[in-house]
Amino acid sequence: MEKALVLITLTTDFGLQDPYVGQLKGALFKGYSAITVVDLTHAIPAWDVAAAARVIRSSYHYFPDGTIHLIVVDPGVGGQRALLVAAGDGHFFVAPDNGVLSMLVADNRIDTIHRVERPDFFRSSVSATFHGRDIMAPVAAVLAASTNLEQFGPAVEPGSIRTILVPESVRKDGCVSGQVQRIDHFGNIQTSIQAGDVVFEPSAFDFLQIGDHRISQFVRTYQDAAPGSLLVLINSSGHVEIAANQASAAERIGCIQGDPVTLHLLEAELPT
Amino acid sequence: MEKALVLITLTTDFGLQDPYVGQLKGALFKGYSAITVVDLTHAIPAWDVAAAARVIRSSYHYFPDGTIHLIVVDPGVGGQRALLVAAGDGHFFVAPDNGVLSMLVADNRIDTIHRVERPDFFRSSVSATFHGRDIMAPVAAVLAASTNLEQFGPAVEPGSIRTILVPESVRKDGCVSGQVQRIDHFGNIQTSIQAGDVVFEPSAFDFLQIGDHRISQFVRTYQDAAPGSLLVLINSSGHVEIAANQASAAERIGCIQGDPVTLHLLEAELPT
Amino acid sequence: MEKALVLITLTTDFGLQDPYVGQLKGALFKGYSAITVVDLTHAIPAWDVAAAARVIRSSYHYFPDGTIHLIVVDPGVGGQRALLVAAGDGHFFVAPDNGVLSMLVADNRIDTIHRVERPDFFRSSVSATFHGRDIMAPVAAVLAASTNLEQFGPAVEPGSIRTILVPESVRKDGCVSGQVQRIDHFGNIQTSIQAGDVVFEPSAFDFLQIGDHRISQFVRTYQDAAPGSLLVLINSSGHVEIAANQASAAERIGCIQGDPVTLHLLEAELPT
Repeated sequence: MEKALVLITLTTDFGLQDPYVGQLKGALFKGYSAITVVDLTHAIPAWDVAAAARVIRSSYHYFPDGTIHLIVVDPGVGGQRALLVAAGDGHFFVAPDNGVLSMLVADNRIDTIHRVERPDFFRSSVSATFHGRDIMAPVAAVLAASTNLEQFGPAVEPGSIRTILVPESVRKDGCVSGQVQRIDHFGNIQTSIQAGDVVFEPSAFDFLQIGDHRISQFVRTYQDAAPGSLLVLINSSGHVEIAANQASAAERIGCIQGDPVTLHLLEAELPT
Repeated sequence: MEKALVLITLTTDFGLQDPYVGQLKGALFKGYSAITVVDLTHAIPAWDVAAAARVIRSSYHYFPDGTIHLIVVDPGVGGQRALLVAAGDGHFFVAPDNGVLSMLVADNRIDTIHRVERPDFFRSSVSATFHGRDIMAPVAAVLAASTNLEQFGPAVEPGSIRTILVPESVRKDGCVSGQVQRIDHFGNIQTSIQAGDVVFEPSAFDFLQIGDHRISQFVRTYQDAAPGSLLVLINSSGHVEIAANQASAAERIGCIQGDPVTLHLLEAELPT
Repeated sequence: MEKALVLITLTTDFGLQDPYVGQLKGALFKGYSAITVVDLTHAIPAWDVAAAARVIRSSYHYFPDGTIHLIVVDPGVGGQRALLVAAGDGHFFVAPDNGVLSMLVADNRIDTIHRVERPDFFRSSVSATFHGRDIMAPVAAVLAASTNLEQFGPAVEPGSIRTILVPESVRKDGCVSGQVQRIDHFGNIQTSIQAGDVVFEPSAFDFLQIGDHRISQFVRTYQDAAPGSLLVLINSSGHVEIAANQASAAERIGCIQGDPVTLHLLEAELPT
């Protein structure tokens, strides 16, 4: 083994109850053995391309340069959607052309995209329902062996791939409106409002409204609040988050993904 | 490190809430460090030897030659059941003699089986309830270091190991009868009817009956059907599957494992 | 790659639904690429430092010498609690100073502990809520590259770190009192009573009382009891366990963590 191991991350909606993730990893190792595979997550809600797009956008850069990110959330499997390999910011991506890479394009993280048009790279027998295993994993293995994107097919303009519309946040009248984007394992509620959208100092925070709950406590860390009390902070991916110290904010509030959230600022520019 | 890393897959009914899988992996690395471990699945229903047998049969061949498959679904742990190492089709298997390897034997995939009778290969202190960690992992590590099966104990005839009876499918009067075999994370319903059992052209498909549901739509991929509508297709492991495009067929139908399924063919040979 | 891969285990309360474990692994590989990461468990109940302490105590020694164990159960993240690196019994540990290492200290397994006071080892941008990814993983990567603990900060006395009180078991009047410590995936009920606490021969076992259930069957392995019947045995981590052969003892008994358990011995020293 003369080359270092190539890192490949997986982002899928497969869950862990079936042998699908294992079979896909088998196909990766069968294609190229000098790899290390890391599960980024297999808990993307089924068919939720936007959730996968958000996870890969907020996570890829924690991995070393040269990492290959394989994203298999693919409701159009077996149909006409293209498969893409992309490179940018020192990383590589393999994914269907269904919008999952569009946030990276919007962030100007992608330099080059090629369409995959080389059936000779695929598994000899390709199923109609599991291209992650039969096409995308073999393609990622070829990429691990040689990071030349030309070999896969024609270049496509980053701006021409499919995009998804993702509601983020809107500022108006001294308020920032967003929504519940993700509820995590701890019951922390990540909103669609990013620290950069708000451009506010903690001193400008008045309160956050979600349902009937008005939360006035803006803190730096969970344990800056009393145990169990609701709080607002900027979380580790730069989003405004509603949480509780050692308790589940989601359980206390009873919200679900998509629920509206409004952040009220003290320095409101009132309409005149 | 002069040798490539040896690949070892794990198939267990341990789940992921306890440290059991981690401890077993520790024992593998303690036995032989130049390995890569891949979780095939830890979600085999507790003590369900037949489910493990089906998963390993349908999955092992996606891994490269030389892979060692360690299968720990072992309701008879600590008792008289033997432990086996087996080789065939370029792969290696370590498992209890409880039927989990019998489908591979039935498929003529196994060339050689030896019984494990070398306590000096085991952990120095063997618990009565966790032979996966204390015996099978150390044995798999020895196998990773040297794939000579003679070292473990006497050869046994493949035909003499314990077998399990698994209902698959029966063809009669223009119908193929089977049952619900597995419901996956997406709510797709895999039946026990394999493509090869049926030997039918899509044009010969009339309908599939499950409970009160008669499904007439036979397609190649999920997205060939309207979103949410029930469909039948051949899935990625070659089985007849009932699914819905971007929806859970199992939720819509309300079936459980073992429920009967009947596939009706147009070219029925009617009794005369 | 001239050095063997360094093994790093992870013990967290992150669960597997979010990309947190993946991001932390990214940070490990970014810090030092010649590693293999093994999940010990990510299912520690949220913020349950005592549960993490028990898992690492009962599991670390199954791994080879030189393994680094990274434990991220950190309710005080972002606050004043120190971060520690420790060495002992051939292993290394990275964890917050919140009691998670105190059982290893109590067992005399720890030789050396240093406080981590080198921000130059951390991620360039440290979030307030995810020190596992931004501080502890980079520190573990530095440790993987060079196992010199001096580099991290001042030595601290093992006896001076924070401890946690964990109820275990008490012997009195021919009884051993303990409690339900952990219910596993199979429904096996691990009690806080360890084989060493009891120092009893199976012949001295009279019965175990839990709620309304009096269990008289003390066996060596699950399958020494009739299928479904309640039994008591010494489990693979040396604890007294209530189980059932191929059935869930926890479901049959309906107990939860913390419920009292009393083990009655035949050789009771009766009050006179």
